Amino acid sequence: MGPLLAEAIAASEGIDIRALLTEALHMGDEGHNRNKAGSLLFLKSLVPLIAGVAKDTVLEADVLEFLGENALSVLNPVMAACKAMADAGHGVDGSTMVTTMARNGTDFGIRVSGLGDRWFTAPADIPDGLYFPGFSSEDANADIGDSTITETAGIGAFAMAAAPAIVTFVSGTPQDALNATLEMYEITIAEHTHFSIPILEFRGTPTGIDIRKVVELGITPRVNTGIAHKEPGIGQVGAGLVRPPMAIFEQALVAYAEEYL
Amino acid sequence: MGPLLAEAIAASEGIDIRALLTEALHMGDEGHNRNKAGSLLFLKSLVPLIAGVAKDTVLEADVLEFLGENALSVLNPVMAACKAMADAGHGVDGSTMVTTMARNGTDFGIRVSGLGDRWFTAPADIPDGLYFPGFSSEDANADIGDSTITETAGIGAFAMAAAPAIVTFVSGTPQDALNATLEMYEITIAEHTHFSIPILEFRGTPTGIDIRKVVELGITPRVNTGIAHKEPGIGQVGAGLVRPPMAIFEQALVAYAEEYL
Repeated sequence: MGPLLAEAIAASEGIDIRALLTEALHMGDEGHNRNKAGSLLFLKSLVPLIAGVAKDTVLEADVLEFLGENALSVLNPVMAACKAMADAGHGVDGSTMVTTMARNGTDFGIRVSGLGDRWFTAPADIPDGLYFPGFSSEDANADIGDSTITETAGIGAFAMAAAPAIVTFVSGTPQDALNATLEMYEITIAEHTHFSIPILEFRGTPTGIDIRKVVELGITPRVNTGIAHKEPGIGQVGAGLVRPPMAIFEQALVAYAEEYL
Repeated sequence: MGPLLAEAIAASEGIDIRALLTEALHMGDEGHNRNKAGSLLFLKSLVPLIAGVAKDTVLEADVLEFLGENALSVLNPVMAACKAMADAGHGVDGSTMVTTMARNGTDFGIRVSGLGDRWFTAPADIPDGLYFPGFSSEDANADIGDSTITETAGIGAFAMAAAPAIVTFVSGTPQDALNATLEMYEITIAEHTHFSIPILEFRGTPTGIDIRKVVELGITPRVNTGIAHKEPGIGQVGAGLVRPPMAIFEQALVAYAEEYL
């Protein structure tokens, strides 16, 4: 699959993942745990490219079927796109905006635009969610992965209101999904100019977490996430919701005060 | 394209359009004017089938690109599926349920389950909506087409609440989309067991128009529709909303009274 995809993408003029996300948020995705529409839009872009370069029709059919049946096909390209967007906001003098959130299975860490490459970390929690058949919270590892770059860039849990059907996957009700987005407006700097939510009258998604607002209001960012098994080699066992520890925002705000005030 | 699609579909075990619609209604489609998600789900089903039978890779790439770029690719199969569903409810003795709605550019007609193959017709209105650049209501033909079989089967305008983003295409606000569905519960017999609307707590779509309720409440069914140019050969010039004339429901109810009471 790798060489075929590489050849197909090399033959393209690139795939605009921001435009893809704009459309997917109008199709019931939030871009992190739910990427059903985005993955099909990705398939749509790849299909003529793959058909144009494939020599082995059996391989081609297998690859296209795999991409089409995997509702998270586009998640990794989306993460890379969100990373590029968030990095574009990093290193702004005096900025209190969070530009990275990531978990390594032990700690949850953030970086802040105006505070250089320093990480602020504290122990990661175990996500709250629904488990695949045969698994329970006993099997769960503490929160892990780089995919919180999606929330950092204004999608994922921040765009939950766009994806009410996701509650069948992560638990909760459609009203919870609306409330998740509404709460995130409280701790963000802006409303996204490209990503919007039809049911909220096309309001832009809450974007740019402000460490001052998080600490002042006592509201930590919401994260939609997969749940990994605590033993290596088993992989994902569920999906749910988690928040970073408040301590890392407090640490960052103290560091900001030391740096700038 | 025709022979390639025919060969691909002959090689399949069929495509379950009802299951496709169930999923598409959770992805921002209403299944009549908005079929973006459904068309991609259709593409996803066809892609490995087409890849498995295609001999000419240039033709294959062209066909797949055309299917992927046309956001209404699946509309005609959806209409056929809705026709099969509605016909299954036709011919029930004593039933006041509408089993067909159709327009021919001059008249709007309905048939009723318990009233055999008789049509009740009256002059069709001009839809209210948004026009493609360069066209206006001056160019519009009176309401035309068989696609109202979607509303007859419980999707389309009846499922507008599932598709708030559609208002950019047919005019109105997301609240109007919610209200459209809520109003249709007033004149229908049941809530669909397969088609549901996440934002309404996964309530089934309003399904099965009852001529008694239409006449008693003075509420005609809502229809999402394309707008055709009044001159032949130009085709679609816009999209909007329309309702059938009340007179056809009154005629049907009089015929029902004559037949059964």
